[in-house]
Amino acid sequence: MRIYVLGAGSIGSLFGALLARAGNDVTLIGREEQVKTVNENGLEVFGIDEFTVYPKATIYAPDEPPELLLLSTKSYSTKTALQCAGGCIGPETWVLSIQNGLGNEELALKRTERVIGGVTTNGAMLVEWGRVEWTGRGVTVIGKYPKGRADFVEEVANVFSKAGIETRVSENIIGWKWAKAIVNSVINGLGTVLGVKNGVLMKDPNLEGISVDIAKEGCLVAQQLGIEFEIHPLELLWDTIDRTKDNYNSTLQDIMRGKRTEVDYIHGKIVEYAQSVGLEAPRNELLWVLIKARENLNKLDK
Amino acid sequence: MRIYVLGAGSIGSLFGALLARAGNDVTLIGREEQVKTVNENGLEVFGIDEFTVYPKATIYAPDEPPELLLLSTKSYSTKTALQCAGGCIGPETWVLSIQNGLGNEELALKRTERVIGGVTTNGAMLVEWGRVEWTGRGVTVIGKYPKGRADFVEEVANVFSKAGIETRVSENIIGWKWAKAIVNSVINGLGTVLGVKNGVLMKDPNLEGISVDIAKEGCLVAQQLGIEFEIHPLELLWDTIDRTKDNYNSTLQDIMRGKRTEVDYIHGKIVEYAQSVGLEAPRNELLWVLIKARENLNKLDK
Repeated sequence: MRIYVLGAGSIGSLFGALLARAGNDVTLIGREEQVKTVNENGLEVFGIDEFTVYPKATIYAPDEPPELLLLSTKSYSTKTALQCAGGCIGPETWVLSIQNGLGNEELALKRTERVIGGVTTNGAMLVEWGRVEWTGRGVTVIGKYPKGRADFVEEVANVFSKAGIETRVSENIIGWKWAKAIVNSVINGLGTVLGVKNGVLMKDPNLEGISVDIAKEGCLVAQQLGIEFEIHPLELLWDTIDRTKDNYNSTLQDIMRGKRTEVDYIHGKIVEYAQSVGLEAPRNELLWVLIKARENLNKLDK
Repeated sequence: MRIYVLGAGSIGSLFGALLARAGNDVTLIGREEQVKTVNENGLEVFGIDEFTVYPKATIYAPDEPPELLLLSTKSYSTKTALQCAGGCIGPETWVLSIQNGLGNEELALKRTERVIGGVTTNGAMLVEWGRVEWTGRGVTVIGKYPKGRADFVEEVANVFSKAGIETRVSENIIGWKWAKAIVNSVINGLGTVLGVKNGVLMKDPNLEGISVDIAKEGCLVAQQLGIEFEIHPLELLWDTIDRTKDNYNSTLQDIMRGKRTEVDYIHGKIVEYAQSVGLEAPRNELLWVLIKARENLNKLDK
């Protein structure tokens, strides 16, 4: 399959490497440093698996449209990335977002109706340009966005699974995107404000209680939007905390590195959607403001 | 005036010293170390004013009742302090709480109807046993609790003012207690979770907005309880932040020293009173849980 990976960070590089190794025609579209390194030395994966591949890498999207455009930038870069690289989206091209947070598929839908939503629990970290650590083997769920089925989605799931990316298809991917965003609103919200590893959230009954309250805010908004869940967000929450108890969440990792976080697309979107249906999401709003304040304080510290 | 100061910490020691210097018959009731030091070397005040006085100091309340029992323990010690020292409350004794938070006067009311509520903006810090720094000159407001007037309250205000504690009388002291608790719910809540000086809360428009939302939660509860304000809590909030912009709030100071905080009597009481009138206070609840979690993590770190 001819695949462009738009955003060659941690998860984009991992998926790109695995798909390239399986014989797909992969082009990474990324930042100058990453592109230069991959073109010179290839892309090295280590951790769960170890290999080096030599996919194409470029700063600008090629003119020729791919069959699949894999969106893997940070959520706050999706709009700009699609403005710069959207020209390669042809009438037959499908766009698949495996990004965190809400709102990315909506941006893709402005370009084409052929949009696939995705969530993944694979863990990856770009430790230096050209070197990505596969830190945790997970499951990827994809589906025609917002709902329904399409033959091409099955095809992508096959291509992914053959490449070593365990992938399932859902006919309700919007439910998965929301469930994951709700889980992130709790784990990334509380874990970041407290500065603790995920497992701490299960060690304190008050934190467990407030976790449920935060999750419920997101569930109420989803319900008002007519979104249904294949897995209850609370079940996904406890399972995720348990599986990642020794990890710092990605938002806290961003804060620790002085980087911008994705909370505008987690808590921010939940608050925005809440307002759109006449609800409040005060806990999400407070966590959002606290983390944005922390981001800005980081900037002032520098 | 014959005055017992129950709780010889920062503010109790400051008020006790000032009242003793003015010729009142002051007895400090406090912890062993403080009592021993004051009996041996006297009580030294420095900062805004500098002097040493030699009030009586004891661990147990004397049997003979005082005219005024000044309650100045931490709020979480009020119940125990009144159990231990409540025996000295005679039929003519008035109990004045100048503590932070809500609920202290209610505990005193179980002992006597002669209860005075108080708020103070004086800053004090017991830097070591027997030595208290007067860090900021402020105003004290007192009044018959919950409302109304009493000649003895005027008398206390005169005694305080003559001693150098600028004091005003209010016939609606419960409104002042709530206004101050609401101000503390914002400043101590946000300032502690972010780990910043008070002034930071005015530097970020999002933090300003969420400050208003947190304050409104407390105001709504107060309104349902029929409490009126002489000064709007938001006005008091901005004024307090401005006057204390270079300070860390008292809750954050407690956290930094690994001590128990008073949030159970600030956010905790607002949540409790909210539930009593069928309201929610989600922002106060989240801040409460976050700070309690931080307190418990501090304990685990040791």
